[in-house]
Amino acid sequence: MASSVHSVPPSSAGKGCCAQSKHASTKPCHPLDPLSGDEISFSASLIRHYSSHPVKFNCITLHEPKKAEYAAFKAGTGPRPARRSFSIVLKKGTPEVSEFIVNLTSGRVESCKHVENVMPTLTPDDLDVTERIARSDPRVIQVCREIGITDMSKVYFDAWAIGIDERWGFERRLQQALPYYRSSPLDNQYAHPLDFSVVADTETEEILAVDVRKVNGERTMMPLENHNYLPEFIADSYRSLLRPVDITQPQGVSFRMNGNEIEWAGFKMHIGFNYREGLVLSDIRVDDPYEKRERTLFNRISLVEMVVPYGCPKTPHHRKHAFDVGEYGTGLMTNSLKLGCDCKGAIHYLDAVLATSTGEPSIIKNAVCIHEEDNGLLYKHTDFRDGRVISARDRKLVISQIITAANYEYAFYHTFSLDGTYKLEAKLTGMLNTYCLHPSEQSAPYGTEVAPRIDAQNHQHIFSLRVDPEIDGPNNTVLQTDALAADDAVGSEANPYGNAFYAKKTPLRTAREGAATYCHETNRSWDIINPSRISPTSKKPASYKIINSQCPAVLAKPGSVVYKRAGFARKALWVVPYRDSERYPAGDYVCQSIGEPNYPNNETVVDWAERNESIENRDIVCYIQFGLTHFPRMEDFPIMPAEPVSVMMRASNFFQKNPALWVPPSQVARDDTSRAACPGGTGCEMEGLKENSKL
Amino acid sequence: MASSVHSVPPSSAGKGCCAQSKHASTKPCHPLDPLSGDEISFSASLIRHYSSHPVKFNCITLHEPKKAEYAAFKAGTGPRPARRSFSIVLKKGTPEVSEFIVNLTSGRVESCKHVENVMPTLTPDDLDVTERIARSDPRVIQVCREIGITDMSKVYFDAWAIGIDERWGFERRLQQALPYYRSSPLDNQYAHPLDFSVVADTETEEILAVDVRKVNGERTMMPLENHNYLPEFIADSYRSLLRPVDITQPQGVSFRMNGNEIEWAGFKMHIGFNYREGLVLSDIRVDDPYEKRERTLFNRISLVEMVVPYGCPKTPHHRKHAFDVGEYGTGLMTNSLKLGCDCKGAIHYLDAVLATSTGEPSIIKNAVCIHEEDNGLLYKHTDFRDGRVISARDRKLVISQIITAANYEYAFYHTFSLDGTYKLEAKLTGMLNTYCLHPSEQSAPYGTEVAPRIDAQNHQHIFSLRVDPEIDGPNNTVLQTDALAADDAVGSEANPYGNAFYAKKTPLRTAREGAATYCHETNRSWDIINPSRISPTSKKPASYKIINSQCPAVLAKPGSVVYKRAGFARKALWVVPYRDSERYPAGDYVCQSIGEPNYPNNETVVDWAERNESIENRDIVCYIQFGLTHFPRMEDFPIMPAEPVSVMMRASNFFQKNPALWVPPSQVARDDTSRAACPGGTGCEMEGLKENSKL
Repeated sequence: MASSVHSVPPSSAGKGCCAQSKHASTKPCHPLDPLSGDEISFSASLIRHYSSHPVKFNCITLHEPKKAEYAAFKAGTGPRPARRSFSIVLKKGTPEVSEFIVNLTSGRVESCKHVENVMPTLTPDDLDVTERIARSDPRVIQVCREIGITDMSKVYFDAWAIGIDERWGFERRLQQALPYYRSSPLDNQYAHPLDFSVVADTETEEILAVDVRKVNGERTMMPLENHNYLPEFIADSYRSLLRPVDITQPQGVSFRMNGNEIEWAGFKMHIGFNYREGLVLSDIRVDDPYEKRERTLFNRISLVEMVVPYGCPKTPHHRKHAFDVGEYGTGLMTNSLKLGCDCKGAIHYLDAVLATSTGEPSIIKNAVCIHEEDNGLLYKHTDFRDGRVISARDRKLVISQIITAANYEYAFYHTFSLDGTYKLEAKLTGMLNTYCLHPSEQSAPYGTEVAPRIDAQNHQHIFSLRVDPEIDGPNNTVLQTDALAADDAVGSEANPYGNAFYAKKTPLRTAREGAATYCHETNRSWDIINPSRISPTSKKPASYKIINSQCPAVLAKPGSVVYKRAGFARKALWVVPYRDSERYPAGDYVCQSIGEPNYPNNETVVDWAERNESIENRDIVCYIQFGLTHFPRMEDFPIMPAEPVSVMMRASNFFQKNPALWVPPSQVARDDTSRAACPGGTGCEMEGLKENSKL
Repeated sequence: MASSVHSVPPSSAGKGCCAQSKHASTKPCHPLDPLSGDEISFSASLIRHYSSHPVKFNCITLHEPKKAEYAAFKAGTGPRPARRSFSIVLKKGTPEVSEFIVNLTSGRVESCKHVENVMPTLTPDDLDVTERIARSDPRVIQVCREIGITDMSKVYFDAWAIGIDERWGFERRLQQALPYYRSSPLDNQYAHPLDFSVVADTETEEILAVDVRKVNGERTMMPLENHNYLPEFIADSYRSLLRPVDITQPQGVSFRMNGNEIEWAGFKMHIGFNYREGLVLSDIRVDDPYEKRERTLFNRISLVEMVVPYGCPKTPHHRKHAFDVGEYGTGLMTNSLKLGCDCKGAIHYLDAVLATSTGEPSIIKNAVCIHEEDNGLLYKHTDFRDGRVISARDRKLVISQIITAANYEYAFYHTFSLDGTYKLEAKLTGMLNTYCLHPSEQSAPYGTEVAPRIDAQNHQHIFSLRVDPEIDGPNNTVLQTDALAADDAVGSEANPYGNAFYAKKTPLRTAREGAATYCHETNRSWDIINPSRISPTSKKPASYKIINSQCPAVLAKPGSVVYKRAGFARKALWVVPYRDSERYPAGDYVCQSIGEPNYPNNETVVDWAERNESIENRDIVCYIQFGLTHFPRMEDFPIMPAEPVSVMMRASNFFQKNPALWVPPSQVARDDTSRAACPGGTGCEMEGLKENSKL
């Protein structure tokens, strides 16, 4: 297939992309559309030809047009941006990293940059290496034999990025792996954790170390009891207590797709996807029913990082703090979704096209799910005098993706509802990461013994949502809002009854001020405002309010490895000026990162904030951290019930009035019976009394 | 109809109740079932005969059996409790209050107690008085004429309880009313607020005062512009952008009703209802699939109080802080629900039977809605090696009620889901309370000008959920849980990498300690535990975790009227010993309460906490405060999009493992396509490559 691509002349490659893209059409594809299969193959072939040595592709992804360039194109004041790909490439068998930018329109390699002392994302290919080589490593076989395991085909290795290992530096591209045992092919391996871990070199394919954790000089035997959840094991315990709930849309869905662009209930946006962030929502606009114009909301929204630090000080847990976006790639770990299990109703799917290590395209079918859900009451009011009732139902658009990060599952639901609200809901499920307890050990205080001698350690999940706002225009400011009682004393002229309270609004003026923590006592929220759009009525600026109260700060101590590497997780909010080159708050290269300030080629949001530039009335970017602290429960084993966590942005004095009044009410009626509970009142009907006579 | 009841001989009244109750059957009704119509009429007739003077009934409601008595009956160790009614009765035309307990089984008045210096709930009957008498009051007519209003039929009065008015004490039963104007019968009156308020005596039916608020010695003209939301006015702006979402249960619902008892997915409980709390859930139990026994969770759950303090210091807003449960009765304000507007799917309704001021029963049809909803993913896991996928869908049972409190609507959804979680979600909608702005005034900082010269003031909604726990038995303790980094320094032997953190558990030992605030920094939660049920595996007690982070404390200053009257709203949690006589945290008689400590006949949860009794390993009650602080937005006018707020209780080491493994998975499949994004890995399928060849 590669060769077929070779024959594609550069000039036609652009067209090639679109002829192949899902929205088959002859018009050129949207500048933000992900790379097509041909574009991936074409990029790979150009890079191969360009390189003097054999290469291994780490990623081949869309190089998005510069913001200004794309804005000019949208405005009709600039040309269509060229299609470009961005690739990270390793010199085969080494950790040497180069970045390529290929111009697919002109068919030229535009830049090739060698990058020192960085380690790119571990791809699923990379992760598979470790399991393969560990199984056959004589030291591994030996330590398994010591605890009575002779059949190595029953030993499985979950490969992880390595948080820290002082024994090696950037001369090696490292991975660690945590071993488990399966008593049968479908057995739940997390019931049989083993007491050692391995460190591998991904590129040379060597096992560098087998670290056995001895307790009082002894090995720990694995727990033998099985704990399963698949039907093969537990089908006889199924009960038919639930009758089906059918959700259908006989007239079809309410959204319209044009390729990767979607239009729904007055919202418009582009849905992108890449190997690292997964879902990317761009160009989010809304029709204002009162100003009768389209208004911009957000340039770009995506989940750009997350960290899962474990809270047990014992080895090997000190190394466990996965950055699932930066170290593994949320896009690469995406599930293919099946109707009826992950979502209900009328679903539209988008496939994802990714690149393999050999530079070939590969598809994840149904990677993105788009559907609507009834969202309960939109509004309701009853006039208590005559029982006149009006109510309308809310609806939400859900754009979702589910990933599998070894043991854990994360479902991300980007939702929009009719009152103009954006909400990201994450649901956490899957399997707890487990470890074996030596008979002399106990889980407390750093974990929970979820089954005999199976330890699940305390951990946190801290996500970073990157929001590039464009609230009714390019220049925005963030105000910190705190609910405070008036200063005036009870009984004073300004506060005679002591009930006065107000919203104190503090503009975040510089990036250091933009590094903000949540405050429960003041009900803190943040308004992203457009300071030049003041409502003549409310005298308040057009704004969207960030509501983010589920935002635990990282619990690892200052100075610790996690604290340094996951600097973004120290704050609930960062606000920095926009730069095309800045997207990932833990750095572009998170694997083996050490989190030192201003690390070359790997700056973090902490560095950007420290520049302390102005963030007032300009093009800014918000990094919103949210998540939860998880003290495992027995109920989370052997498979976890989904736990939700979310963050919201709500219109606040953005619209002149309730933006959902265009929604036809689901009911306009008179409710006399409730009124009839008080016969004799003014305007009160008699039906109630007739009811009584039935008694 | 009353006369027909008079002829019912006492002995048969008990049967009468059940013959008449919704679950028509000959077996005696459940001891917690609400009073039937006959029981209400029978109680009224006995009280009338007993009383030497004409009476006005404030309430006639079930007098629940003592906890011990009911427990003995359930256990089969005690007799069926007698049916009893509790009534609050006013001497007609006066504020003199008596409490009656009538034994309906024996047909006798068991007790009649005169209660000094208290004011009972304002019923809808009471509230109607004010509008009626205000319209025809000469002073009211005069102040209306002064601002150009001559047609009094267009002036409407929202009657409110009175927070404070130093001019009168307990010699009068007071109400205030806020006037509005309607330019036509269906016009939204909240667009035309008037600049005065009235104070009335509910019993003598006199207007006591007409308080005109002058600004710089001037009257404020009402805003004339109409702002409507009913179809009669805005139908031409409706858009058909949404296609229907149909939710059906072709095989019917999954729950079984036996009268007011419900059984669903292993949960069992009784659904009660009264004029004050509205919905009451009792006797909540769950089938433990592992211990193969029924286990108790909660004796009783109900919303027992709420307060809505307004934050504007100007008169008349200082008087606005409605206690919608204690001052008006959540049950009395309940909407009759209509299928398809308030809930979707297969719905089961319960009617509510209430008493009128003349002692007659009156029905609210469809007062309680019971239905199921699909609840998204219950759990999911994909084995990344072979793409084996399993997932199951969650379901929730929703027991709901919607009330109209003059301008505001509150929807309360008590939900149970398959992982054992209880959640109360409240949705706030309806109309903002508005006031007119004088041209010289501005809303800021205590409100928002939501439309020209229409001011909506800052306010809070603080709810109190009363939870009488019985976590696997009668004696429970509450532990406060704080997530903390280990004390040990980074690099110390106990914390070499500085990542250690744990859940600090602090038992709340006495009622003063039980008065707790939320702490964001430590991710605070509270575990209701049974200290005598320790899991041999986790070594942790069976518990339910209270997750309550949306819990703003009252912002009114210490010493203020609201601070005193709404003492319950100072804390996120109160834990006190159980007493049959204690239910309402702001007192049994909230109207005109002054919030002084240990006020006779009207103690509050603050007083109960100050007793500082032990709350360890005994029968305890938790009062959980949650809610939100509302700074009105233009989007909230003319009718508010629903705003949700919730509190949750989740099983935590209560079950031996995931309690939902009995739920058949919605899918067991192999997902090779996502795996195919990395061909060449171990256990990786080839479908992906076939996909590629299609490119």
